[in-house]
Amino acid sequence: MIKNDLFLRALKGETVNRPPVWMMRQAGRYLPEFMAIREKYDFFTRCQTPELASEITVQPIRRYGMDAAILFSDILVIPQAMNIEVEMKPNFGPFLPQPIRSAKDLEKVIVPDINATLGYVMEAIKMTKEKLNDEIPLIGFAGSPWTILCYCVQGQGSKSFDLAKGLCFSQPIVAHDLLQKITDTTIAYLLEKVKAGVNAVQIFDSWGGMLSPVDYQEFSWHYIQQIIDALKGVAPVIVFGKGCWFALGEMAKSGASALGVDWTCSAQNARYLTGGKITLQGNFDPARLLSPPSEIKSMVKQMIDAFGKDRYIVNLGHGILPNIPVENAKAFIDAVKTYGE
Amino acid sequence: MIKNDLFLRALKGETVNRPPVWMMRQAGRYLPEFMAIREKYDFFTRCQTPELASEITVQPIRRYGMDAAILFSDILVIPQAMNIEVEMKPNFGPFLPQPIRSAKDLEKVIVPDINATLGYVMEAIKMTKEKLNDEIPLIGFAGSPWTILCYCVQGQGSKSFDLAKGLCFSQPIVAHDLLQKITDTTIAYLLEKVKAGVNAVQIFDSWGGMLSPVDYQEFSWHYIQQIIDALKGVAPVIVFGKGCWFALGEMAKSGASALGVDWTCSAQNARYLTGGKITLQGNFDPARLLSPPSEIKSMVKQMIDAFGKDRYIVNLGHGILPNIPVENAKAFIDAVKTYGE
Repeated sequence: MIKNDLFLRALKGETVNRPPVWMMRQAGRYLPEFMAIREKYDFFTRCQTPELASEITVQPIRRYGMDAAILFSDILVIPQAMNIEVEMKPNFGPFLPQPIRSAKDLEKVIVPDINATLGYVMEAIKMTKEKLNDEIPLIGFAGSPWTILCYCVQGQGSKSFDLAKGLCFSQPIVAHDLLQKITDTTIAYLLEKVKAGVNAVQIFDSWGGMLSPVDYQEFSWHYIQQIIDALKGVAPVIVFGKGCWFALGEMAKSGASALGVDWTCSAQNARYLTGGKITLQGNFDPARLLSPPSEIKSMVKQMIDAFGKDRYIVNLGHGILPNIPVENAKAFIDAVKTYGE
Repeated sequence: MIKNDLFLRALKGETVNRPPVWMMRQAGRYLPEFMAIREKYDFFTRCQTPELASEITVQPIRRYGMDAAILFSDILVIPQAMNIEVEMKPNFGPFLPQPIRSAKDLEKVIVPDINATLGYVMEAIKMTKEKLNDEIPLIGFAGSPWTILCYCVQGQGSKSFDLAKGLCFSQPIVAHDLLQKITDTTIAYLLEKVKAGVNAVQIFDSWGGMLSPVDYQEFSWHYIQQIIDALKGVAPVIVFGKGCWFALGEMAKSGASALGVDWTCSAQNARYLTGGKITLQGNFDPARLLSPPSEIKSMVKQMIDAFGKDRYIVNLGHGILPNIPVENAKAFIDAVKTYGE
C-alpha cells in the first residue's frame, strides 16, 4: 500500500537496512518555496486552506525525499476550536488576547465538534494523501494538553511559563478541568485525523521539560497517557517531550510506538533510560545544521551508529531553524539515505 | 570569624543540624524594598554604585535571615569590562548593539585590568562585608564563559541562541578565542573578588543545557574547569549548570565544592549522577513558590528528606520569579530553618 514503508516498519520495531528520516518543521522557513507562499498568505490562512497546507506539506518531500511527511498545521488550532481566540503576530509568535486564568474564564471553553471546527484539517489530509500518492506515510500531530495549557494560560510564549505554572499550583482544580477538556478535544481530533488518512500521530510536549518529575506526572503525563490509550490499535503514536529525559522510563511503558528525544540526551542515555526496546526518534541538535555539510554527514553517521540502525527514526532534536542553508539540510537527509553503503 | 558558618560547613561536607538556605536572585523584584530602589536608579547604576549594590544585597537578609548573601551584580559586567557594550533595556532585557560574530569583531575585545574596569564591584564587596558584620558568608558570582558568549554573539536573550551556536559550529576558532578571553577575564575577576572579601563563588552556566553532551564538553565545561582549577585553594566554587544533568558525573570529579541542580533533576537522580559524595544545591521549582505557604513548607521538608540534610544547600532550581508573594518566600526560608524541630 505505502511504497516506502521504512518509517512504519521502524515504528513496529522491524529490522531495516537503514533507519528512516524526517525533520521536525521540515515544511518551514528554511525553504525558499515555503517563503514564497508565506509572503502571500498569513499563518492561519496557510493552515486553514487545504490547497496551501497540502502544498506546503509536500514541498520538502519533493526537494529532499524524506521517508515521511508531516501535515503542515499548528498545535494552536486546538484552543481555537475550543473557543479560545489565538492570533499569530509577526515577529512575536502566538498571542491569545483572552487567556484562561480562572474558573470563570474556563466557562466559555468548549469541547467542540471536530468536523464542524477543524474540518479544514481533514480536507488538508485528504488532499495531501492524494499528492503523496502512497509513496510515503503521512504523520498527523497535536500538542500535549500541558503544552496547550501553557499557551492558553500564559497568553503567549514565555521562558518560564510562570502564569501557566501558577495556575496549576494555586488553582489545580481549574487547571485539571482545562487539561481534561484539551485532552478530550485532542483525542477526538486525532481519531478524526486517522480516519482522514494519517498513518501515525506525534504528540509534541514542547514544554513538559519545564516541570519537575512529580509535577510532570500530574500535569502532563497523566493526559498524554489518556491519548495513547485512546489511539491504541488505531494508529502508532510517537511522543516527543522536549527536556523530558527524566520521564523516559515511564514513557517507555506507556504503549507509545516511539519516543522522541532531544540532543541533550545522548543515544546511550536514551537507550538506557527507556530499557533498550522501544523505537527512539531524534536527536540531532538543530543548530548543528549550521556546521559545514561534510561535518554534518559524519555526525549523522556517528549518531546512527550510536542509536543503532534498528528501532530508530532519524530526526532533529527539535524543529529545524529558519537560518539553515538548504544544502545543509540536504546533507543531513543524504547522510541517512546513504548510510551503510 | 563568620558567626553563622552553616553554608561554609555544608560546602566542606561537614555534618550539620539542618542544611543552610539561600535563594538565587534573592535580592530581586519580588521584594518591595528592592522595587523602591529600582524605581529611582537604572540597572547598571545599581550595579556600579557600591552603596546601592551593598544595600540591595543585604535587603533579603534583613527580611528573611538567609544563611548566605550573594552580591547584587550581573554576569554581563564581564563583557562590559572586555570592551563590549551592554545595555539593559526595560521590558526587553540585555541588548548588545555590536555583537561578536567574526574574527574581525573579536579584535576589539580585550582581557581587561580588573581593578581599572570592575573596581566598583570590589568596593561593593567591601561595603557589603561591613554591613554583614561577619554574621553570614558572602557569595560572589560570574557567568560561565559559554553563557557569556551566548549574549556576546546573539546580542540579546534567545530561546535557541542559534547565532551563538552557529558561531561555535561554523567558526570554532573564533568561538574558542572568545571563550578563552572570557575565561581569563573571569578568573582574574573572581580572584579579585575573593581578595575583596567574598567567601565563596558561584559559576552560573545558565545556557549550558542548550548544548549536546559532546558540545558541552568542548564549548562550556572545558572553560569552567579552568576556572575551578584557578580557584583551587583560594575559595570554594559552586557550579550551577541549568539543564546540565547530563554533565553532572564529570562535574562531580572537577574539584568544585558543590553543584547546583535544577528541579527537573530529582534528588535521587542528582545523588546518583554525582556519585553521592559532593555537596548539592537546589532544586525547588521557582514557580512552586506560587503554591499556598502551607504546601510550600511540606514540599521543602520532603525535598530536604530526599537530598538528606548533609552535603546539601537548600535553594531554588533557578532565580526567584518577580511575582512571588513575600510571605511565600518566607514560608520557603522558614521551612528550612525549622527543619528537624
